[in-house]
Amino acid sequence: MRNDAALNELSSLLGNRLSRSKSDLDLHGRSESHFPLTPPDAVAYPDSTAEVAEIVKICGRHGCPVVPWGVGTSLEGHALAFTGGVSVDFTRMNRVLKVNQEDMDVAVQPGVTREALNEELRATGLFFSVDPGANATLGGMAMTRASGTTAVRYGTMRENVLALEVVLADGRVIRTGTRARKTSAGYDLTGLMVGSEGTLGLVTELTLRLQGQPEAVSSAVCAFPTMEDAVNAVIATIQMGIPMARIEFVDPATAAAFNAYAGASFQEVPHLMVEFHGSEGGVKEEAETFREVVADFGASDFEWAVKPEDRKALWTMRHNAHYACLASRPGARAIVTDICVPISKLAEAVEETRADIAGASIHGPIVGHVGDGNFHTVLLFDEDNPTERAEAQAISHRMVERALRLGGTATGEHGIGVGKLDYMEAEHGDAWGVMGDIKRTLDPQNILNPGKMVRVN
Amino acid sequence: MRNDAALNELSSLLGNRLSRSKSDLDLHGRSESHFPLTPPDAVAYPDSTAEVAEIVKICGRHGCPVVPWGVGTSLEGHALAFTGGVSVDFTRMNRVLKVNQEDMDVAVQPGVTREALNEELRATGLFFSVDPGANATLGGMAMTRASGTTAVRYGTMRENVLALEVVLADGRVIRTGTRARKTSAGYDLTGLMVGSEGTLGLVTELTLRLQGQPEAVSSAVCAFPTMEDAVNAVIATIQMGIPMARIEFVDPATAAAFNAYAGASFQEVPHLMVEFHGSEGGVKEEAETFREVVADFGASDFEWAVKPEDRKALWTMRHNAHYACLASRPGARAIVTDICVPISKLAEAVEETRADIAGASIHGPIVGHVGDGNFHTVLLFDEDNPTERAEAQAISHRMVERALRLGGTATGEHGIGVGKLDYMEAEHGDAWGVMGDIKRTLDPQNILNPGKMVRVN
Ligand SMILES: Cc1cc2nc3c(=O)[nH]c(=O)nc-3n(C[C@H](O)[C@H](O)[C@H](O)COP(=O)(O)OP(=O)(O)OC[C@H]3O[C@@H](n4cnc5c(N)ncnc54)[C@H](O)[C@@H]3O)c2cc1C
Ligand SMILES: Cc1cc2nc3c(=O)[nH]c(=O)nc-3n(C[C@H](O)[C@H](O)[C@H](O)COP(=O)(O)OP(=O)(O)OC[C@H]3O[C@@H](n4cnc5c(N)ncnc54)[C@H](O)[C@@H]3O)c2cc1C
Repeated sequence: MRNDAALNELSSLLGNRLSRSKSDLDLHGRSESHFPLTPPDAVAYPDSTAEVAEIVKICGRHGCPVVPWGVGTSLEGHALAFTGGVSVDFTRMNRVLKVNQEDMDVAVQPGVTREALNEELRATGLFFSVDPGANATLGGMAMTRASGTTAVRYGTMRENVLALEVVLADGRVIRTGTRARKTSAGYDLTGLMVGSEGTLGLVTELTLRLQGQPEAVSSAVCAFPTMEDAVNAVIATIQMGIPMARIEFVDPATAAAFNAYAGASFQEVPHLMVEFHGSEGGVKEEAETFREVVADFGASDFEWAVKPEDRKALWTMRHNAHYACLASRPGARAIVTDICVPISKLAEAVEETRADIAGASIHGPIVGHVGDGNFHTVLLFDEDNPTERAEAQAISHRMVERALRLGGTATGEHGIGVGKLDYMEAEHGDAWGVMGDIKRTLDPQNILNPGKMVRVN
Repeated sequence: MRNDAALNELSSLLGNRLSRSKSDLDLHGRSESHFPLTPPDAVAYPDSTAEVAEIVKICGRHGCPVVPWGVGTSLEGHALAFTGGVSVDFTRMNRVLKVNQEDMDVAVQPGVTREALNEELRATGLFFSVDPGANATLGGMAMTRASGTTAVRYGTMRENVLALEVVLADGRVIRTGTRARKTSAGYDLTGLMVGSEGTLGLVTELTLRLQGQPEAVSSAVCAFPTMEDAVNAVIATIQMGIPMARIEFVDPATAAAFNAYAGASFQEVPHLMVEFHGSEGGVKEEAETFREVVADFGASDFEWAVKPEDRKALWTMRHNAHYACLASRPGARAIVTDICVPISKLAEAVEETRADIAGASIHGPIVGHVGDGNFHTVLLFDEDNPTERAEAQAISHRMVERALRLGGTATGEHGIGVGKLDYMEAEHGDAWGVMGDIKRTLDPQNILNPGKMVRVN
């Protein structure tokens, strides 16, 4: 087989930590969204940076693709080995290396998940803020430039990765960044790596920014007469400068999915889910201002989650929105869209998308991190029904066109993988060529996650 | 002369907007810090992106260096044409192109200064937050990844540049980023360009994030018994999570310089200058918490600046700290240092620096954006006295060594230019080589600001 020479060498290096069992290959060939099963030739489970460097060198000598794998929750086929090769699974590199409580930062290996990290931080009064709906790894999250419900306040992975250790395509190990909060010393290689989807290097260590647990937290859900009202309420809230910690939009279909999946009892109308972080007095004042602002848009049915366990239930429900939507049509596959637009264009983008879905035969609940101008539809289709698949693809396509027309981006947080590759040229023009130039420079053989994000020939 | 062919073509393109007058050359050969007069061969004053692209193409054909120039306030010789060539002065590209009030962003040409932008924004309720001590251009600030007194709250240029238009070394014009608040669509070229000091491209347009004017603002100065007390008060404040909008450190020598230069009447002891932004209630609460926290460190002599004009006077004084320090020794030149360390190491870094200066024959007032772990000394020396110059250089050198030893960076905000070039390898190791690879890819002829930030052969 094509990559046999590489696999033999990898096998001597890793012993039974190089797996070729069918179940393992299938596990690393699966995607949470609509891509077909695409097993790699083998799965490697390195224990250390040195081993990762060795793996990359061996693969480099044999021209064998290296496809990094966190937990495989990325939605655009990012972690699939479409041209074969070795899936490098970071499960075993899952240690929290050092919590620097005074500096509010932490060094972790890439296989640590966001939930495991926050578990580890529980006693410190600190937390890591980026919270995608899946319990993703920090390596994977850095590589997709992930975000979540709190980006509106604490930023995305772009703002929360201070430094990285990276194995390059030639096996060199570099460190980018320091623990200093800011620097003007050279090109921002940390920033270049964050969001690069494993195409420029393999991350073997991350230094992350942490946040202090707020003294007071207050969460609420409220209902709106129409989607437009809800979205306009968001716009007003953001423009008023109310320092929201979270502000999430839920459409009637998602509200219904929450009722069915999580035992909620929402009216089937649009809702906002919000949270305030701060001092006791500050949070109270902000919540009050919010209530006044959204009253103008017909907000009703306020439910405040005061107890920690109620808040936890609320946000767990939100984090499981994807699964709730999937469950609303058992057996269906999903194309998950992810556009992000300037906030002033949000109402227009949501409304046109809603109308598109209303005119189709398939369902597509809408849910989003609207404080950033970012929203998703979960377009549910029957895999065996080409008409439905085409409908889902067409709606997704028009959403991206809409985002670009409105001055936004094809993907606010999920990334490119292969699923959004065809939009790179439209979004970036000649700048996409520059990305290809950088890729060729850092990975001249195109062995690192080939076929994703850039085209190199 | 070496670059005559290029200059002739540029002269046909630009007419009298290509200047070779001695006064103009000298003006573009000067530095605010300790570098000798280094005039370029000519100064170009483009009016448009198309002209900038034409300039770069002409220079490319003739191998003539292109050295971008904002207002030349960078401190490490960034904008000096050490190997000759054309200084490209962006003075004429100084229009604010579009204020998007609803989206809190603005498109500007690179020659707009931060003060001019804020003047233009006055009626909008918005402001641009990054405020270096000089009235620098936004192009220059983006290229040095500048910051200032408000970075602790609103971030540096890294966080505040959303998108760029850039002319590359081959004359291609690219756009990086969009007006969306976040994106996962491709490598972060905006981030790669920000801080690149004109070595990767010439910025011809910037889209910047704006902030809402806070409802309430409150500023104060307070005195401390020792430097250690003041610094430990900062650390405690940051670790308590008090959302400071500004927190600046001033040592006794700087306090004295303020008295002499700005008619202040500070005790000659360490001070902190702070500011709170928020709602009326929030600001009050924060100021109160701050007062309690710093009381433990012996804070006294609180002076609150309540009226806008008093606050303005306070921060103008802070912004002019560099000139106040210079004026404390008329005729002296300055090496301005700029280290940044993790906040837990700040007391150690400041104390060792203080001791170093105390043991020298020259003066070096210490002042800093301490909320970020960043501080400067203005090392004043007599240009004609080699012993003093050597002392200044040695103190500066030891500060950088100290910063790197403590896990920090050689420069928090001023940048590399030529002045810090010798530290790049120590700070970045092999990652500096990767920066060189990127430079070679994007500027194979090495015509863009050659000799700065990276070494290419
Ligand atoms: C239910 C659900 C909800 C979601 N909600 C969100 C959300 O709110 N926000 C959001 O941003 N995303 C969301 N996602 C998408 C997904 O969780 C993110 O993309 C996440 O960052 C992927 O992390 P992972 O550990 O699963 O990485 P993987 O999917 O395994 O990998 C992601 C990419 O990173 C690369 N990679 C992984 N580890 C490394 C490494 N150590 N070095 C180099 N490259 C590496 C892979 O090759 C791949 O290109 C959701 C997904 C699901 C299924
Ligand atoms: C008194 C004083 C106080 C200061 N305080 C601070 C401070 O608090 N924080 C801080 O960060 N800095 C500070 N500085 C340093 C300086 O103000 C900053 O480095 C500033 O960003 C430089 O802006 P400028 O417009 O003067 O750029 P210049 O000095 O003209 O240029 C800076 C760099 O950017 C490049 N460049 C300029 N324009 C462009 C363009 N359009 N495209 C591509 N490259 C370009 C130049 O080639 C050069 O490499 C201070 C300087 C002084 C003199």
